[in-house]
Amino acid sequence: MNARLEFDAATATVDTAAIASFPNSTKVYIEGSRPDIRVPMRSIAQSPTPDSFGGEVNPPVFVYDTSGPYTDPAAQIDIRRGLPAMRRDWIDERGDTEELPGPSSAFGAERLQDASLDALRFGLQRKPRRAKEGANVTQMHYARRGIVTPEMEFVALRENLRRKEYLAQLEAGGPQGRRMAELLGRQHPGQSFGAAIPPEITPEFVREEVARGRAIIPANINHPESEPMIIGRNFLVKINANIGNSAVTSSIGEEVEKMTWAIRWGADNVMDLSTGKHIHETREWIVRNSPVPIGTVPLYQALEKVNGKAEDLTWEIYRDTLIEQAEQGVDYFTIHAGVRLAYVPMTAKRLTGIVSRGGSIMAKWCLAHHRESFLYTHFEDICAIMKAYDVAFSLGDGLRPGSIYDANDEAQLAELATLGELTQIAWKHEVQTMIEGPGHVPLHLIRENMRLQLDGCMEAPFYTLGPLTTDIAPGYDHITSGIGAAHIGWFGTAMLCYVTPKEHLGLPDKADVKEGIITYKIAAHAADLAKGHPGAQIRDNALSKARFEFRWEDQFNLGLDPDRARAFHDATLPKESAKVAHFCSMCGPHFCSMKITQEVRAYADQGMREKAIEFVRGGAKLYREV
Amino acid sequence: MNARLEFDAATATVDTAAIASFPNSTKVYIEGSRPDIRVPMRSIAQSPTPDSFGGEVNPPVFVYDTSGPYTDPAAQIDIRRGLPAMRRDWIDERGDTEELPGPSSAFGAERLQDASLDALRFGLQRKPRRAKEGANVTQMHYARRGIVTPEMEFVALRENLRRKEYLAQLEAGGPQGRRMAELLGRQHPGQSFGAAIPPEITPEFVREEVARGRAIIPANINHPESEPMIIGRNFLVKINANIGNSAVTSSIGEEVEKMTWAIRWGADNVMDLSTGKHIHETREWIVRNSPVPIGTVPLYQALEKVNGKAEDLTWEIYRDTLIEQAEQGVDYFTIHAGVRLAYVPMTAKRLTGIVSRGGSIMAKWCLAHHRESFLYTHFEDICAIMKAYDVAFSLGDGLRPGSIYDANDEAQLAELATLGELTQIAWKHEVQTMIEGPGHVPLHLIRENMRLQLDGCMEAPFYTLGPLTTDIAPGYDHITSGIGAAHIGWFGTAMLCYVTPKEHLGLPDKADVKEGIITYKIAAHAADLAKGHPGAQIRDNALSKARFEFRWEDQFNLGLDPDRARAFHDATLPKESAKVAHFCSMCGPHFCSMKITQEVRAYADQGMREKAIEFVRGGAKLYREV
Repeated sequence: MNARLEFDAATATVDTAAIASFPNSTKVYIEGSRPDIRVPMRSIAQSPTPDSFGGEVNPPVFVYDTSGPYTDPAAQIDIRRGLPAMRRDWIDERGDTEELPGPSSAFGAERLQDASLDALRFGLQRKPRRAKEGANVTQMHYARRGIVTPEMEFVALRENLRRKEYLAQLEAGGPQGRRMAELLGRQHPGQSFGAAIPPEITPEFVREEVARGRAIIPANINHPESEPMIIGRNFLVKINANIGNSAVTSSIGEEVEKMTWAIRWGADNVMDLSTGKHIHETREWIVRNSPVPIGTVPLYQALEKVNGKAEDLTWEIYRDTLIEQAEQGVDYFTIHAGVRLAYVPMTAKRLTGIVSRGGSIMAKWCLAHHRESFLYTHFEDICAIMKAYDVAFSLGDGLRPGSIYDANDEAQLAELATLGELTQIAWKHEVQTMIEGPGHVPLHLIRENMRLQLDGCMEAPFYTLGPLTTDIAPGYDHITSGIGAAHIGWFGTAMLCYVTPKEHLGLPDKADVKEGIITYKIAAHAADLAKGHPGAQIRDNALSKARFEFRWEDQFNLGLDPDRARAFHDATLPKESAKVAHFCSMCGPHFCSMKITQEVRAYADQGMREKAIEFVRGGAKLYREV
Repeated sequence: MNARLEFDAATATVDTAAIASFPNSTKVYIEGSRPDIRVPMRSIAQSPTPDSFGGEVNPPVFVYDTSGPYTDPAAQIDIRRGLPAMRRDWIDERGDTEELPGPSSAFGAERLQDASLDALRFGLQRKPRRAKEGANVTQMHYARRGIVTPEMEFVALRENLRRKEYLAQLEAGGPQGRRMAELLGRQHPGQSFGAAIPPEITPEFVREEVARGRAIIPANINHPESEPMIIGRNFLVKINANIGNSAVTSSIGEEVEKMTWAIRWGADNVMDLSTGKHIHETREWIVRNSPVPIGTVPLYQALEKVNGKAEDLTWEIYRDTLIEQAEQGVDYFTIHAGVRLAYVPMTAKRLTGIVSRGGSIMAKWCLAHHRESFLYTHFEDICAIMKAYDVAFSLGDGLRPGSIYDANDEAQLAELATLGELTQIAWKHEVQTMIEGPGHVPLHLIRENMRLQLDGCMEAPFYTLGPLTTDIAPGYDHITSGIGAAHIGWFGTAMLCYVTPKEHLGLPDKADVKEGIITYKIAAHAADLAKGHPGAQIRDNALSKARFEFRWEDQFNLGLDPDRARAFHDATLPKESAKVAHFCSMCGPHFCSMKITQEVRAYADQGMREKAIEFVRGGAKLYREV
């Protein structure tokens, strides 16, 4: 037990590592149709190509930025006050919500009255909001009524990354600019397996996708601090990072640090999976300081309330927990309503039974009472809560396989079919919905899984953990699963839940969180390239150009992790002069293939190119004859 | 320059980390048809299932073992003497080779006479061998004549991993044994894209595959220390680790350490890509101490001989280098004979030109002389050397793409077609041949690459570097490429050349070598599972069973890296008692999904199962109606 429980609300400070600037980067905001739509991006400046290679100007590269105000030097960060409530006016303007006098959950009220928690409690002054009687405040509800919300417009601008303006600006820059636009903008046509990705994302396209349930914008009205983002197969593939303490270890301060660390490296969503003491207080600190949507598994907390005895769970306790968390601002709930009594015996012949915590709790409850799951029987009651706050469903895969052996088995696929059925009910209530997926699946069975999900759940966004493509590498499951994640992302998964190197072994620390995130950013980006997501290749092209031209600093800065790239380079050649050298440590100064290629080009430019082309013409036949 | 050049041949010792035993593991040898065919495997013992979960005996698991005598406690390791010449009798018995009086290359003779090298030189007493005048000593030559060599039999035993005997032995153990055989032996049918993997590998199957060129056994007659292994799409996917010093850094001792470290973690082949001083001496130390085939790029050394000036290279210098290295025992040569003059201009419009060192050297030579590559024009002369020592071709992809932008372009595919043409010439001479592949390729273009290689090179084994599926993650290219490697391995690549985290940034150290190897073992195994390689799933099943039963030590020991798994576990729960605990740090003692699943099973066993099955029958209709 190495817990550091000395968290003190009065003196809590932000992790300094979370607020450092990225090298050579500027936080920029793209303004939308109204001044309070300000979409953050990161602009990475580049140095010019060395004179010996042509001396051209290299434009900055814009990248998607999940880090929120933390990387804005103009922002005042004080985690005791939380982030500004950016979406507050948007929510107010809609006029369909009301401020409550206080928490309407029994548990929320009780915690607020408990003086022993004063030293831990986040000092939120704002009251919770809820939909007015009879109102539905989900983005899906608005979308179906043809309303383009500021959230939808924000998302559209964010997805486009200024691509059109960027390339147009380059093209306006004469022949060199046109060459640059062609170089950076060129991309292999993708293979998208039936996705319908438009060349440009418009607010109207966002609305359509949300209306038909093919994408969700997790945006609880009680989390106005969040910067809207979208999850759907026709948008950039997103990643989720899990954090959370357990009964055994970790404290509030550490979890907030993991959250700010996770978004710095690219987490689009964060799930707080805490199961220990002070779940309620920990969550409040995380939500108030998070610019990304926060997800939870309410069942974990409900179980704490009955002292860990699954059979003592009741619908009433669970319901109170949903309301408690919805009023704190949780943006999506994992709800294992697909674990039906009838499916539980299907897991008895498995090698690794039920490995989902939520799934095993519900299975135990079902068997103990020999009754259908209360999550299933009360599903419409749950929908009523979800739409009053715009909490999205993340329909949990409580029967996901925990080993290659159990992949795509009867239990897993029976639950998936039920999740499709529940999706239709959720959509009837206009509640945004995504579907969770496995688990452990060998490479060649991933496609089938994706196909069954797309068909059975009517293209509701798939949100998968990995999948791990082999079980034999504990300590490296970020990699066993990153392989599967790239694959399933390519086939259509909308969000990838990361796996850290500690999976199966222990709780991730900050280093593990970063390793998991970078691995999953790679998987998501590899999937975007394979799907042919417009503009996805710009960053690859820019980085490769920098690499080829020995612009070492630019190569580091354009990468997902400039710090590590620089450190690895410096481990062999620490001198500053080596970062402008036209060679690297792999080959040494006399032996660099890139240097030689430059010489080849010089030769080619000196008239040799024509001669060689003649040779191709004359020689093509020869080569076929040999 | 952080080189440690104080290598002293008289006092050189093996890296102690390379000779430590793996936990709970035993080196075993399977004897073939004659007592000197002793095929090494590692047997990992398991503890019984805890009594509370049934108390059954768990059999040991056999895994492929590349670590050679280093992990045999009975072996006397002295790197100054090298490994025993295990294959010497097999080579002698064939009666088609002769001992030479000394090195027949000018360079080899010269280095031997140079007294200034005494302190560095490996003290080999054995003379080099060569085929008798007119003889061909390749495994392909024997195979085509219907001869099953001891090497082929060795390989067959090695590939099977005792699977048949293992499962038969379990099945003989009564109902519990039969259950265990079914549990461990069960596997998802694979999807092999036209591979022809038999249920069991026989020596005759090996012979057929080598005869038709679909597999190679790299086995230079001057490397009798090697333990035969096979590379082909119908065998287990193999991995290669690159080591090698450069002009800038690294010494002989470090390179030998990297080799012994690499084979410990699973490198099936090692390439020595040294480019600095003492290439010849470094190679000798590596080959004499390596139980796995060693590959090189002879061009690197030839270039050193002309002081790095590509245009000064001649066929004569190159030829002398081939002979020098063939007589040291190098098992395969990367030869960039597909980089033809006519293709060089095709690279001028690339984003990243020619990134292969060998490719850029040859391109420069071709342009400087405006002549066809001497590797291409002398290809049959090269074949004559290869077959006199049984050095295999690894036909280099000198025009592989160095960025996503350049993937699958004209230059790359033109060279690939030429490699197919050269394969036919090599096969005419009965020289074993494999084909090198890219590079940087987005996920969705990998399949096309594999298809073109299989068709154009008549299923000669493909040996690919990655491919990297995105360019945006310097510092993590083991992962960007591990994703591509798993993919292309599934499609039919026979050997995956690892990429370390230092790729593009610096020279890998031992930690990087291990990280690269484990990543590639994962990719290779994920591919084996996806192809449906018989028995590949046994290790996954055993590890998952151990995980489910909280046999923590067994879970660690069955993994690819027991040391890291144990360390990660202990980072959260360091006490020994935690390793027998029926919970882990993710959930704590009251909240473990596996524990709950056990309870679910207990419930199900108490008659609930039947009731629940009734419920399924009755409820199936209900669930469809909702």
